Amino acid sequence: METPTRITVNASGKYDILLRKGGLSHIGDAVAERFKPCKIAILSDDKVFPLYGKVVTESLERAGFSTVSHVIENGEQSKTLDNVTAFIGTMVQAQVTRTDMVLALGGGVVGDMAGFAAAIYLRGIPYIQVPTTLMAAVDSSVGGKTAVDISSGKNLIGAFHQPALVYLDTDTLSSLDHDVMRDGFAEVLKYGFILDKELAQVTARPGTFDLEQVIARCISIKRDVVEQDEFDKGMRGLLNLGHTFGHAIEKLSGFTITHGSAVARGMVIAAKVGAEYGLPNLTAQITEIIKAYGFDTDCPYSADELYDVILSDKKRSGADITLVLPESIGHCVLRKMPATQVLELMIKTGL
Amino acid sequence: METPTRITVNASGKYDILLRKGGLSHIGDAVAERFKPCKIAILSDDKVFPLYGKVVTESLERAGFSTVSHVIENGEQSKTLDNVTAFIGTMVQAQVTRTDMVLALGGGVVGDMAGFAAAIYLRGIPYIQVPTTLMAAVDSSVGGKTAVDISSGKNLIGAFHQPALVYLDTDTLSSLDHDVMRDGFAEVLKYGFILDKELAQVTARPGTFDLEQVIARCISIKRDVVEQDEFDKGMRGLLNLGHTFGHAIEKLSGFTITHGSAVARGMVIAAKVGAEYGLPNLTAQITEIIKAYGFDTDCPYSADELYDVILSDKKRSGADITLVLPESIGHCVLRKMPATQVLELMIKTGL
Repeated sequence: METPTRITVNASGKYDILLRKGGLSHIGDAVAERFKPCKIAILSDDKVFPLYGKVVTESLERAGFSTVSHVIENGEQSKTLDNVTAFIGTMVQAQVTRTDMVLALGGGVVGDMAGFAAAIYLRGIPYIQVPTTLMAAVDSSVGGKTAVDISSGKNLIGAFHQPALVYLDTDTLSSLDHDVMRDGFAEVLKYGFILDKELAQVTARPGTFDLEQVIARCISIKRDVVEQDEFDKGMRGLLNLGHTFGHAIEKLSGFTITHGSAVARGMVIAAKVGAEYGLPNLTAQITEIIKAYGFDTDCPYSADELYDVILSDKKRSGADITLVLPESIGHCVLRKMPATQVLELMIKTGL
Repeated sequence: METPTRITVNASGKYDILLRKGGLSHIGDAVAERFKPCKIAILSDDKVFPLYGKVVTESLERAGFSTVSHVIENGEQSKTLDNVTAFIGTMVQAQVTRTDMVLALGGGVVGDMAGFAAAIYLRGIPYIQVPTTLMAAVDSSVGGKTAVDISSGKNLIGAFHQPALVYLDTDTLSSLDHDVMRDGFAEVLKYGFILDKELAQVTARPGTFDLEQVIARCISIKRDVVEQDEFDKGMRGLLNLGHTFGHAIEKLSGFTITHGSAVARGMVIAAKVGAEYGLPNLTAQITEIIKAYGFDTDCPYSADELYDVILSDKKRSGADITLVLPESIGHCVLRKMPATQVLELMIKTGL
């Protein structure tokens, strides 16, 4: 195990994010250093649990914790309220109490669901994030946004509930399919585009940088943003670069286009829309970097189709929509405008 | 409309509780004084909405708000996650956004569900409580505890989410069935027993006091407790007098024994258990007051039956149970003890 990196988040709860390459079997010690012996209800999926369930469970039990596990099917289609209720049923069965904990072992779907279950079970119990995808590592596992999908839409219900600990063994990320890993890079590139010119330069060419260092940098950026705007009233909105358009693309595709791939396309649209809005035209630069990772940057949907979905999207506040637009590589701005203007700008880009 | 009483709560959100006898038709003005024009999603039930839906809706619309209503069946059996999801579906359909609000028009069931829906919809939007039962007025509408039942048990999921306003027209309470009104008095008596000797004396004989003044006093007590312990880590537990036993009685009866009636019996059990525990024996005094309101004070279940349910109850923390026990009329104490000791004490009382 390499020397661990520790990043501390000071939000409504103060918690550590530990990066320990090769350290998964030591998770029990890290938890025991911070929390009293208790029961830990693990939520995982049928792709991740067979790989890492045993090592996590054994490490926790060696450190004095008892565990109970609940495994769901891998994939976005599992992120339902019914599955959250089923997991809570497992917790009730195992007599999990307010002084016990939840642990999410998996990617963003598992993390979002476990976090939401922890937020609402007995009006809130603590939870630990153990992200096993790059996207969960750099994005969803940090910051306390939890959510599930309902039939009316994606992430329409959820809660702000900060984790009590995030524990990341970067070795687990290499077990991912190529496409899952690439999806995560859409979020990595996002951090560079939004807030960190140097990170954008470092990550401009895939395979040319130290992944652990880049992950730590992304997490630090997210930490800084969350500390300043935990409840997403202002600058946390910057993290939505590409997401307003990306969510619409995901939804229109019936989720056959993955989140990362949709966000990649959404960032290109944001660059084009920004140019039409009057900001510097960064479309070529952003498109080139995104394409270098093998992403398809074409949007198969029209401006009107995207607009209809965006209108029912939760990012909308009243009749206005706040877009994240790039002003330069490493600096994005929030621009609030009437929904109809967003439609006009999209049409101007040729969508 | 009489001069309104205003009680301000300083919790994670600061909000007013307005008592306005005869003031239901002025609710729109009270909301407009505090919030910008927006959409208000009203949750109510099929007993309350036909009585007060029109006056509330019209008052809100006169004051510049648009409304959408969702009506559920009256009764505890409606407090399900499915019904919350259906209400959220109505909000999605009506394009309710983060800057809009929820309004609960009804008793505890409607208030708990509307509060929980507001807590989780788009990760939390504001909500207004308009309690129309005595129990909701003095207890559930104040303090931000929201919850729904799942098949595994009552109130097992929920959130702490403070209302943005509580608006009470005490005239609406008189439309209640006698039994529903009596149920509320169980909670009124509770406040006196726990924290207010004078209130206990005033309310010892039904029909001998000013109801508005007593309601205001109960709300003030709850406000003080919530301000000191919003997240129920300590002294807020005092408000559970009679509830550990009461919930078990409710559950064992298949909810044919109402909440208030179960709490009334639970308070008598708490008095008996307190005496066995070594505290002064207040059983006769407490039983006499409770009986004066027409409550049945006999518990039809054995100590073992109650114990089994209590063990799966959310009030349990690890292997210990914290009981609320009366030390004198107007003063209760919290006593944490092993679950087995609770069983022994119950057996000693003759249950």
